[in-house]
Amino acid sequence: MTINTTPPELPRVTTGPLPASSKIHVAGRLHAQIRVPMREIALHPSAGEPDLRVYDASGPYTDIEAAIDTAAGLPRPREGWIAARGDTESYEGRRIRPEDNGRDAASGKLRPFPRAHAPRRATDDRAVTQLAYARAGIVTPEMEYVAIRENMGRDAALARARDGESFGAAIPDHVTPEFVRDEIARGRAIIPANINHPELEPMIIGRNFLVKINANIGNSAVTSSMEEEVEKMVWAIRWGADTVMDLSTSRDIHDIRDWILRNSPVPIGTVPLYQALEKVGGIAEDLTWEVFRDTLIEQAEQGVDYFTIHAGLRLHHVPLTIDRVTGIVSRGGSIMAKWCLHHHRESFLYEHFEEICEICRRYDVSFSLGDGLRPGSIADANDAAQFAELETLGELTQIARRHDCQVMIEGPGHVAMHKIKENMDKQLACCDEAPFYTLGPLTTDIAPGYDHITSGIGAAMIGWFGCAMLCYVTPKEHLGLPDRDDVKTGVITYKIAAHAADLAKGHPGAQLRDDALSRARFEFRWEDQFNLALDPDTARSMHDETLPKDAHKTAHFCSMCGPKFCSMRISHDIRSEAQKEGMAKMAEKFREGGALYLPKAET
Amino acid sequence: MTINTTPPELPRVTTGPLPASSKIHVAGRLHAQIRVPMREIALHPSAGEPDLRVYDASGPYTDIEAAIDTAAGLPRPREGWIAARGDTESYEGRRIRPEDNGRDAASGKLRPFPRAHAPRRATDDRAVTQLAYARAGIVTPEMEYVAIRENMGRDAALARARDGESFGAAIPDHVTPEFVRDEIARGRAIIPANINHPELEPMIIGRNFLVKINANIGNSAVTSSMEEEVEKMVWAIRWGADTVMDLSTSRDIHDIRDWILRNSPVPIGTVPLYQALEKVGGIAEDLTWEVFRDTLIEQAEQGVDYFTIHAGLRLHHVPLTIDRVTGIVSRGGSIMAKWCLHHHRESFLYEHFEEICEICRRYDVSFSLGDGLRPGSIADANDAAQFAELETLGELTQIARRHDCQVMIEGPGHVAMHKIKENMDKQLACCDEAPFYTLGPLTTDIAPGYDHITSGIGAAMIGWFGCAMLCYVTPKEHLGLPDRDDVKTGVITYKIAAHAADLAKGHPGAQLRDDALSRARFEFRWEDQFNLALDPDTARSMHDETLPKDAHKTAHFCSMCGPKFCSMRISHDIRSEAQKEGMAKMAEKFREGGALYLPKAET
Repeated sequence: MTINTTPPELPRVTTGPLPASSKIHVAGRLHAQIRVPMREIALHPSAGEPDLRVYDASGPYTDIEAAIDTAAGLPRPREGWIAARGDTESYEGRRIRPEDNGRDAASGKLRPFPRAHAPRRATDDRAVTQLAYARAGIVTPEMEYVAIRENMGRDAALARARDGESFGAAIPDHVTPEFVRDEIARGRAIIPANINHPELEPMIIGRNFLVKINANIGNSAVTSSMEEEVEKMVWAIRWGADTVMDLSTSRDIHDIRDWILRNSPVPIGTVPLYQALEKVGGIAEDLTWEVFRDTLIEQAEQGVDYFTIHAGLRLHHVPLTIDRVTGIVSRGGSIMAKWCLHHHRESFLYEHFEEICEICRRYDVSFSLGDGLRPGSIADANDAAQFAELETLGELTQIARRHDCQVMIEGPGHVAMHKIKENMDKQLACCDEAPFYTLGPLTTDIAPGYDHITSGIGAAMIGWFGCAMLCYVTPKEHLGLPDRDDVKTGVITYKIAAHAADLAKGHPGAQLRDDALSRARFEFRWEDQFNLALDPDTARSMHDETLPKDAHKTAHFCSMCGPKFCSMRISHDIRSEAQKEGMAKMAEKFREGGALYLPKAET
Repeated sequence: MTINTTPPELPRVTTGPLPASSKIHVAGRLHAQIRVPMREIALHPSAGEPDLRVYDASGPYTDIEAAIDTAAGLPRPREGWIAARGDTESYEGRRIRPEDNGRDAASGKLRPFPRAHAPRRATDDRAVTQLAYARAGIVTPEMEYVAIRENMGRDAALARARDGESFGAAIPDHVTPEFVRDEIARGRAIIPANINHPELEPMIIGRNFLVKINANIGNSAVTSSMEEEVEKMVWAIRWGADTVMDLSTSRDIHDIRDWILRNSPVPIGTVPLYQALEKVGGIAEDLTWEVFRDTLIEQAEQGVDYFTIHAGLRLHHVPLTIDRVTGIVSRGGSIMAKWCLHHHRESFLYEHFEEICEICRRYDVSFSLGDGLRPGSIADANDAAQFAELETLGELTQIARRHDCQVMIEGPGHVAMHKIKENMDKQLACCDEAPFYTLGPLTTDIAPGYDHITSGIGAAMIGWFGCAMLCYVTPKEHLGLPDRDDVKTGVITYKIAAHAADLAKGHPGAQLRDDALSRARFEFRWEDQFNLALDPDTARSMHDETLPKDAHKTAHFCSMCGPKFCSMRISHDIRSEAQKEGMAKMAEKFREGGALYLPKAET
């Protein structure tokens, strides 16, 4: 792992492969030009099993062949695909204004991204969304790409016996491009892929696919910079973040987003309201539809792949929060609630929702319908305010789909374990199986500093129940802005939750990695054990702490029991003894003699 | 927090109260001599609510009034209670032999605990167990102690509306001494409390009480020392470990255990097989009933409160493990399996189980029936070997109860989420509701270095389903012996899991702390928020990282959003606006006008 050396004022990002890993690319069949990246983890020859292919969200940064230049941005594989569809046009676009970079824009400290991006939009107000194509029966390159990606290099014939409880999901043994198309057409999955984000390596979010995770980054009024945020994005995807939300507020937010987008191979989501609020000096009641609309177009032209839109918060919902322990904790929700109360009317997001759809369909920006009334404490979970908003989100889902827009739904929040499933079931029912995308949920309020864990528990469970994407929570939640270490801890925790969910749902390929790692563990292939881990660096360094010598990496014991005591080693002895004696015969003999001894009281 | 200064060769342990906390003691009614410790967290006067009492396992170490001298050991509150029962006698006890301290005993480096403990035993081979007393209708001081403790200072009248799903548990609004007695008599709960552990502050393990957690400590052939282990014990209970298992192997294990027991206010568990193995030079097949029996008496006389006994592993179970991915991963299980195969007979643990009961009843050592065949990987979960052993554990439970012995049952291990509930349900059925005590379970194998998290997910779930005690897993699991930091991370993670389980079960007092913390959060009482956290030190230091100034501890914002953006602050604005306008009236007005706007497509 090296830190890429660009000139000092440019973001320095982490590059190089993960241990024992190489990037491979699988070509498409329907679309020969697509090259789907996967990570192949090399195993020790003694393993006697093929190298393991795993899903890889890390982009070109982990490709030893790729030359990374953050000032140039990533290659643009989708450029040709989009152009070939012949339904979009390049145009001059909206002119960047000083207020796009927030209140302190005049500081001029941040260098704009050097390469101007010429925006595209649909010609003749057509829908250029993956949903529109899917409904028209078209399998786009994006769809074939994600189909290949979801199979993680598994052969169709290699589906293992299914073992799981999927609560009504319908995960196929093997994902075909046609299955992807049908799930998108049905609204059960989305591919967030703005036509202005050609750097994107497409991915899919839906209950019948691998559970995905999102990492939030972004500067704030108090801390951080563009360089840090670009590296946080690269760092987050290195460890497995499938999408990244840029939640920057305050200064330079247009330029920071440019830097992030041009260097991001994963979908970027935003909450446009945050930037709109900056444009009106941070006064919620001064927000207008015009400012908001302008911000949507600004961000759509830049290439943002999904927008959080808090249009489900109705004026009459606000009083439902009055007796809550923690009121309204969603930033977007509280801003809109304040606006609604001040103006005594429904929000401009709700009133102009169809116009928002018209913008989104022109660039294929997916909706992430925001849960402005999510509970901020165990006490407020599953209350009338939360579920009233969820019902409105269901209505908006239908409207967005009529406009051929892709939709997912955001969910809570803070929810004790016994109330999690109700959230999932109600979301599926209200929102016609649109993908659910939840923050945690946190299963208790009493552990600030460990909310990656309080929420990882809830995330694993709701992922199992059917949630399609889990928004990470870092240890700093409620306390501060995450730094690079927090980002990694949050991502690894959520990869655990997502993977635990895939296993429990019975995903046909999920257990391959567990089994490979467990075999390595049983056979004392320490290097393979580290390399197959979600975080090989940490696994290795923890092992080094007590048994640092290289020789111990081949030792048939570990520091927990020492050489004399190892249960795994004894298991091997048992197995070799069994091979000598013929275990099946032994078993029979012992079963017959099983009644040899009866406890004293019974004799 | 200070480090207690005893002479250099003695253990230096962490003492002093947690932030804003003081130790209070609640007296008994039936037994006036008992003083049940609780921690009282002081809140800021502006909170307008009483200080919060929480369960406190930390012992005298956090009592500002207590003088700690590790060479003298803790006070012995139970001495009088035990003597008053008049059913035990002091006796000379077994003479300590060099091999009690393992193979390198002659090194003589470790100073034995300075104050000799004169062991007691039952007179006339009577049962002096809490189970025997409960069956005789007696409410012991131990029973009243845990009853008061479980209520955490709540008044009987203050039970809140119940909200939870307890899967058949029967948690009362308020715990009475008689309820404790009845649960023990029924075998649904145990109080691990050896008569030779008078330093103990009694606690209860059972499905109808607060979920408990255990921390494993212990040296190994490769690393650690007595000083470190005593401090690990004190450190583990400081953060909330309810019991501690000393899993020391190799050198000085008798003396280390002495130091731990004499300084431990929580029950200490062991796996006597580990020491017995040391006595025969580490050769499993050389183990004999005589050596094992001698070890049980040695440890019972020292005061060990519960023994893990792997008596459920039958000879005919061993072949069932032959096709497993990870064979036998329990140390005890693999040792006994090897012994059984070598000698071609049932284990001496199984054959002499009733004699083990006769020892345990004489000292009131509780059984923790070991799961020698627990799965060591996702692939091996819930297999024939595991469940066959569980059925045998059910048979042994009945035998032990006939001897008036208290019993809990150990459980797995590695189990994907969808297979966890089956473990709990089967255990309750096979073992007649004896308390279940599980290691995790880990919900995936792919995250060495983060197995506190992979297992914390499973632990929270099985705790919800009815597991009575959760054995922690630290980040070092599978990689090395936990150090002090790992112990803390493991304990906090498991306190989260146990508390999440209590909330989901609908424990009548569990949510009080969540609500207090959430109110503090909503009202920007940062100090209260830190002090109410499971780990106040970490919460505070994370907040300090981005907003270090003292003034920020009263700021109405945090570093995530900055002063302009805070959703909580906006919520307050909404609330005060509502108070002006009359929110209820407003709500009505808005609901009437709710149809003011119809989406364009509908008009």
